[in-house]
Amino acid sequence: MLNSQRVSHYAARLALILAFAVTFVLCAPALADTPDETFKALGLAKTASPKELYDALTKRYYDESQGAGKGSFSKYWEPIPISKYLNPHDFYMPPQTIDIDAQRAQCVECHSQVTPGWTHSWKGSVHGNLDAIRNLPDSDVRAYKKAMITEVENNLRSMGTLKTGENLKEVGCIDCHMGVGKDHGQHKTELRMPDAAACGQCHVQQFAERESERDTFTWPQDQWKPGHPSHALSMKANVENAVWAAMEQREVAEGCTFCHTPQTTCNSCHTRHEFSAVQARKPQACAICHNGVDHNEFEGYMLSKHGTIYQTRGDTWDWNVRLADAMEKGNMNAPTCAFCHMEYQGKFTHNMVRKSRWAFVPMPKIAENLNHPWFTQRKESWVSTCSNCHSDRFARAYLDGMDKGIVSGLDITEKARSVLVKLYNDKLLPGQTTNRPAPPAPEKDDAGGFFQLFWQKGNNPSAIEYVFADMWEHHQIKHYKGLAHMNPGGYTYTEGWSQLIGAAAKINDEDTKLREAAEIRAELKRISGQKRGDLDLDSPTRRAIAGGLGLLAVLAGAGLLMRRDRKGG
Amino acid sequence: MLNSQRVSHYAARLALILAFAVTFVLCAPALADTPDETFKALGLAKTASPKELYDALTKRYYDESQGAGKGSFSKYWEPIPISKYLNPHDFYMPPQTIDIDAQRAQCVECHSQVTPGWTHSWKGSVHGNLDAIRNLPDSDVRAYKKAMITEVENNLRSMGTLKTGENLKEVGCIDCHMGVGKDHGQHKTELRMPDAAACGQCHVQQFAERESERDTFTWPQDQWKPGHPSHALSMKANVENAVWAAMEQREVAEGCTFCHTPQTTCNSCHTRHEFSAVQARKPQACAICHNGVDHNEFEGYMLSKHGTIYQTRGDTWDWNVRLADAMEKGNMNAPTCAFCHMEYQGKFTHNMVRKSRWAFVPMPKIAENLNHPWFTQRKESWVSTCSNCHSDRFARAYLDGMDKGIVSGLDITEKARSVLVKLYNDKLLPGQTTNRPAPPAPEKDDAGGFFQLFWQKGNNPSAIEYVFADMWEHHQIKHYKGLAHMNPGGYTYTEGWSQLIGAAAKINDEDTKLREAAEIRAELKRISGQKRGDLDLDSPTRRAIAGGLGLLAVLAGAGLLMRRDRKGG
Amino acid sequence: MLNSQRVSHYAARLALILAFAVTFVLCAPALADTPDETFKALGLAKTASPKELYDALTKRYYDESQGAGKGSFSKYWEPIPISKYLNPHDFYMPPQTIDIDAQRAQCVECHSQVTPGWTHSWKGSVHGNLDAIRNLPDSDVRAYKKAMITEVENNLRSMGTLKTGENLKEVGCIDCHMGVGKDHGQHKTELRMPDAAACGQCHVQQFAERESERDTFTWPQDQWKPGHPSHALSMKANVENAVWAAMEQREVAEGCTFCHTPQTTCNSCHTRHEFSAVQARKPQACAICHNGVDHNEFEGYMLSKHGTIYQTRGDTWDWNVRLADAMEKGNMNAPTCAFCHMEYQGKFTHNMVRKSRWAFVPMPKIAENLNHPWFTQRKESWVSTCSNCHSDRFARAYLDGMDKGIVSGLDITEKARSVLVKLYNDKLLPGQTTNRPAPPAPEKDDAGGFFQLFWQKGNNPSAIEYVFADMWEHHQIKHYKGLAHMNPGGYTYTEGWSQLIGAAAKINDEDTKLREAAEIRAELKRISGQKRGDLDLDSPTRRAIAGGLGLLAVLAGAGLLMRRDRKGG
Repeated sequence: MLNSQRVSHYAARLALILAFAVTFVLCAPALADTPDETFKALGLAKTASPKELYDALTKRYYDESQGAGKGSFSKYWEPIPISKYLNPHDFYMPPQTIDIDAQRAQCVECHSQVTPGWTHSWKGSVHGNLDAIRNLPDSDVRAYKKAMITEVENNLRSMGTLKTGENLKEVGCIDCHMGVGKDHGQHKTELRMPDAAACGQCHVQQFAERESERDTFTWPQDQWKPGHPSHALSMKANVENAVWAAMEQREVAEGCTFCHTPQTTCNSCHTRHEFSAVQARKPQACAICHNGVDHNEFEGYMLSKHGTIYQTRGDTWDWNVRLADAMEKGNMNAPTCAFCHMEYQGKFTHNMVRKSRWAFVPMPKIAENLNHPWFTQRKESWVSTCSNCHSDRFARAYLDGMDKGIVSGLDITEKARSVLVKLYNDKLLPGQTTNRPAPPAPEKDDAGGFFQLFWQKGNNPSAIEYVFADMWEHHQIKHYKGLAHMNPGGYTYTEGWSQLIGAAAKINDEDTKLREAAEIRAELKRISGQKRGDLDLDSPTRRAIAGGLGLLAVLAGAGLLMRRDRKGG
Repeated sequence: MLNSQRVSHYAARLALILAFAVTFVLCAPALADTPDETFKALGLAKTASPKELYDALTKRYYDESQGAGKGSFSKYWEPIPISKYLNPHDFYMPPQTIDIDAQRAQCVECHSQVTPGWTHSWKGSVHGNLDAIRNLPDSDVRAYKKAMITEVENNLRSMGTLKTGENLKEVGCIDCHMGVGKDHGQHKTELRMPDAAACGQCHVQQFAERESERDTFTWPQDQWKPGHPSHALSMKANVENAVWAAMEQREVAEGCTFCHTPQTTCNSCHTRHEFSAVQARKPQACAICHNGVDHNEFEGYMLSKHGTIYQTRGDTWDWNVRLADAMEKGNMNAPTCAFCHMEYQGKFTHNMVRKSRWAFVPMPKIAENLNHPWFTQRKESWVSTCSNCHSDRFARAYLDGMDKGIVSGLDITEKARSVLVKLYNDKLLPGQTTNRPAPPAPEKDDAGGFFQLFWQKGNNPSAIEYVFADMWEHHQIKHYKGLAHMNPGGYTYTEGWSQLIGAAAKINDEDTKLREAAEIRAELKRISGQKRGDLDLDSPTRRAIAGGLGLLAVLAGAGLLMRRDRKGG
Repeated sequence: MLNSQRVSHYAARLALILAFAVTFVLCAPALADTPDETFKALGLAKTASPKELYDALTKRYYDESQGAGKGSFSKYWEPIPISKYLNPHDFYMPPQTIDIDAQRAQCVECHSQVTPGWTHSWKGSVHGNLDAIRNLPDSDVRAYKKAMITEVENNLRSMGTLKTGENLKEVGCIDCHMGVGKDHGQHKTELRMPDAAACGQCHVQQFAERESERDTFTWPQDQWKPGHPSHALSMKANVENAVWAAMEQREVAEGCTFCHTPQTTCNSCHTRHEFSAVQARKPQACAICHNGVDHNEFEGYMLSKHGTIYQTRGDTWDWNVRLADAMEKGNMNAPTCAFCHMEYQGKFTHNMVRKSRWAFVPMPKIAENLNHPWFTQRKESWVSTCSNCHSDRFARAYLDGMDKGIVSGLDITEKARSVLVKLYNDKLLPGQTTNRPAPPAPEKDDAGGFFQLFWQKGNNPSAIEYVFADMWEHHQIKHYKGLAHMNPGGYTYTEGWSQLIGAAAKINDEDTKLREAAEIRAELKRISGQKRGDLDLDSPTRRAIAGGLGLLAVLAGAGLLMRRDRKGG
């Protein structure tokens, strides 16, 4: 639809593209495109040099009061050997078995023998072939990388790691693993596993964009804490999760950590040692984390029209084109994860949460505030994104329908929650009063809580609580994600709605059964009491049974007699 | 196997290919290949002109008594904003915000700015490059499209929208969105969203083929209504579904509609605005609808030998080759969805249901009639299809085994049904007599009915009914689809058989438990009654409990006392 | 990490590659690379000729006491028509409808008409184009196939089916389907469906490698029988499975057989009639069997970093390169199934089980012996494999963590098993004493046994046993496979751990409920007995109910009265 908003949007896009180009040419200030919110949060002027910006970003990045380190549950858990690769800044120590002073050239030499995969990937990467990029004709779709190299050199000069007039020769092992521009280093003491800040030394803008997720994502009604949920604070989200910290099976818990690494490393999306931009542009790069029972974005996308076109026509697209040019120059005629989620007001950056509204999980606190300007402005940004290929009217029709569909799912979930919580409050869950151990600290007991998907003991959780945890954390989220990614089966029958219906049916069914069973027990006690004043329904026998310890002889005898009679009769 | 049937089959194939070629050359009559059944149903001679055929097809296509419109449940539901894109003929209205008289050239001009994705797709399509096709050498695998352009021009001349001697210059926005050959039109009033009939103006043959599904699919024992289930009446199937019409969550219900659009648009398989034939040839084009819990054809295919070869070798096939030549010229050495399902007696058309036997869901009415000629002739057509790559004997061995395997699944499903229905008839389902609301009109109550997968309230459905609905509608269908698509895990353990076994086990288990509970309640009532003449098991207290309204104080006191005793004891 | 082990590993690899090359040049002895264990098992010296090796291998291959034939349950089942294609040696008979003496050239001639797919595949295969391979320049990545042709000719000369000085002209239909080098044969009597031994006539080394799985896989504490689980004895594993033999639904059971064919045919991985090596190198070739509910290796891989790189960058790899050169010459920068599982100590062979430790399913007998040298040596072999791309330290950290994660899953499964077995021993499972038919022979009853996933009748299995069978056979295995294939969601929430938690919660919940129900029944019996000496709780009425036969009138009257009262009240 041609309207003033779209027009102004395109004008803004054009202006920004020009601004972007100018940035590269002038090289100062470094990061005019980083959101204002981040400059403000860091206390910097927008004229800050790359070094000033990088130093401020890094200081916050390593600040344990702002998301680094083991977090507030640190006393409950310890890292395991694999942890050093997932959160290198906090846990990595060089191996003590290799005691050499390694020269720059030696790294590839030796590792071509011991870990050839590393060096092959690097040799095929841009890092290993800077001059190949520099020599590209301007007509090559990858020519934009020439400007990126210039930008990196400008950053390094600002930081003092590259001299004026000097060009970057290569990005070798030692630059990332010991220090940019170093000639040699002690393998045993100076080796480091690069974190996002290490990449940020050269790629200041991309680092700043990613870090800006902390600043642009402040919820108007505190639905989530500032900066959450986001890639920038993904590791913080992990270590601040009570059941994660509480689990004694650290190797299983560390499985969660594998996906919570975008805060600590760039390797999550740009796999070492090729660090391919093409890889990160493809939906499968996102799929490694964004799949499965509680965030099936990938599955939804693949079974949408968008994913269908990607799968059937994507082999004719030129993936080397940068996102901003993908439609125009790359023949891309359907969106990818990166195209829609990295775009904001016509620009493509590493801040993926500027349009987020429902975020991770539908909540009443979100549903009730969708008309607040914070939410409506974000929806308008989505309309603008969709308008790359759809009419304004189509976009609004879909987005409004999506919101209503999510609210319908939320309604059924919240009704089920009230039934379950009432059972819990009435102490009617199986074994609730006799065999319900509390979860280990720092986790606390809760009816149908998140922790019940990862920990169990005795009658905690009861079967129906697991059903409910599965409902709100999985089915409800998949319902929303199916709607958000235009996968009809994902919010009607295969996932989403039908699963919510089934869970609600099970919860109501169990509610009826547990209350009828309580009625029977009460009636039985009344009768027994009337008949025999000395009836002791609280005998050790009964407690043992209720505690799951088995039938003692006397009762077992009676019970089995009853059944054996039947069989023999 | 070389036998007379195969020989005659090949002779027939050859004859038909010749007939096909002749059709293109002579250009009249237009549609010698459209099934006789369709000519008969439309009251046309096979010598009918393209215009006569198109007019007759379109008249029926828009006939509300034959599948168009809101259907017999129309008073129960209203379209929502997105509906206009799913059923444009019935619901689309142009946007009122754009009030211009648009000239032919202006469409692309303006929309290249406001919705650039549209125009990019169109520019890369055949529609946007007719001359590029016309200039292909005959040796090019896409050269067959030259004949298609000629055919289209013949159709348009027949309809009077192209003058004799005039060639089609382009297929631009205005041709589909306002009228073929128009020069300009009022955006606010004349804009339309094309339906299948709009495409059919040019592509009469393909439209006729698709529409012929109505005519060739008449079941001998009325297992399904004529023409069902098919793409041609897919929207009718949607609006005539009672629970779909009954659901108050229209945004969720409309998710079903997204896949029921092959009746209303060609966009379901040939995505606008590229309308790529290559796309529609790839299995992922079908997957967008044919996936998931109740029709997992895509998943089955991908995990079959056929799908394995497609996935591992398909990148060496030439997808631009038309289906009929795919093996010979395209290096295709495994079938795709389109290859097997569009083929019938050696020809490839848009009628996909000429060989269907089990259709959507196994039913006793089908299982009991497999030896009827209607079914055996369709099986013979499958043998012919499989014989492209397999021996006649292999094809029969597999198809017979498939039928038996499906019947085995049906047996277990029907046994479970009888157990469930007996529980329902005996009024033993949890809350059945106290808290079972009827579903909203036009849906009606039913034990384990389809509606229970999409609607629930109180104790409707009971948990075990949902299990059964899941069994017959999902596990049973997946069992069949796994067999039909040669995915062993799809009918043994991952899906199908093992899931049917599990559902049957759950249903028998619940049957035992519900009947034992009834026995206990009856015995308790007997004892209570004997003991105390004034025992009122029908007190408000009990009714409240059974109704899920919670324990009243007096009973709760007794119940909790009993449990608290245990804990404290 | 540079350590002596890695160095010696690379030295060994180099030596073996040289040995490999020498083998091709000298052509005798044929199979220096076949494991020593196999020569020993066959009673051959390593200097054995190709013929000697092939004869010994084939003798064992067809020995019914060593895995061929119908197995020890043979009297319980019969093959069905499709079986002849799955186990051709035991069940294939030529079709009796074609009675011709077929000449070599006639095969393709006739089958190009009746089954064109066969001949198209063959025409595009190496078999159909030997000279095209012979004419490749040495620089071509497929040039290694020249040496393979020479090796095949050497084998055939050793067996006397190719004369000295004669070269192989083609590998035509008749060579595999009637006999190598034959000119003609009777279609009705001489036609055969090739088994693995038929392929082995030419490909002795590959056949020997595959057969060596029998010899290298002998478990130190008899966790599995020698050679199990492996491809080489996969059909034996099928026919020795009691519930497979017991199932009356042979068409469903034969679904299992489809994946148990690597013993009986090479077609499982190298699909006829292209027999593509490229196909078998791609993960989807393995996926056809290694997917799904009880061995989701493919799904795990695809959602791992490895699979992500394969999916996003694999289109830039040269798949025609042989595995040993894939990284160096093929640009492969992530592992595939074949790369890791065919590799052993730097060599790539068709023995895929030389590094197996956890094999198919985690068991206490494995968990308790991981420090035994048999297991530690296999782990070291994995470290060496991973070191292609990862540091020794990373590999050990991951592998150790994987082991611990698997043990955590095993713990929870075994705890649940003890709860379930106690219920069974206490005869408390629903209907256990009244309606639990034994499974058909040769299967035997078992609490939560494997058979319960495929067979059910009455109350066997109970619902909770199905949950447990699903737990140990599916969730536990997926937990392990998710860990083993680096798919975080596969062992934390989507599959694995969270599913194990859920199953354990359900089992404890059911335990509590069944024991409380028994208590109520016992109490009710006690009260009834006290009240009325003549109370007969073993009446036919009750037996009928317990047996699922419905409520007889008298009881139904009472029960319904009770409920009707409630409703009417």
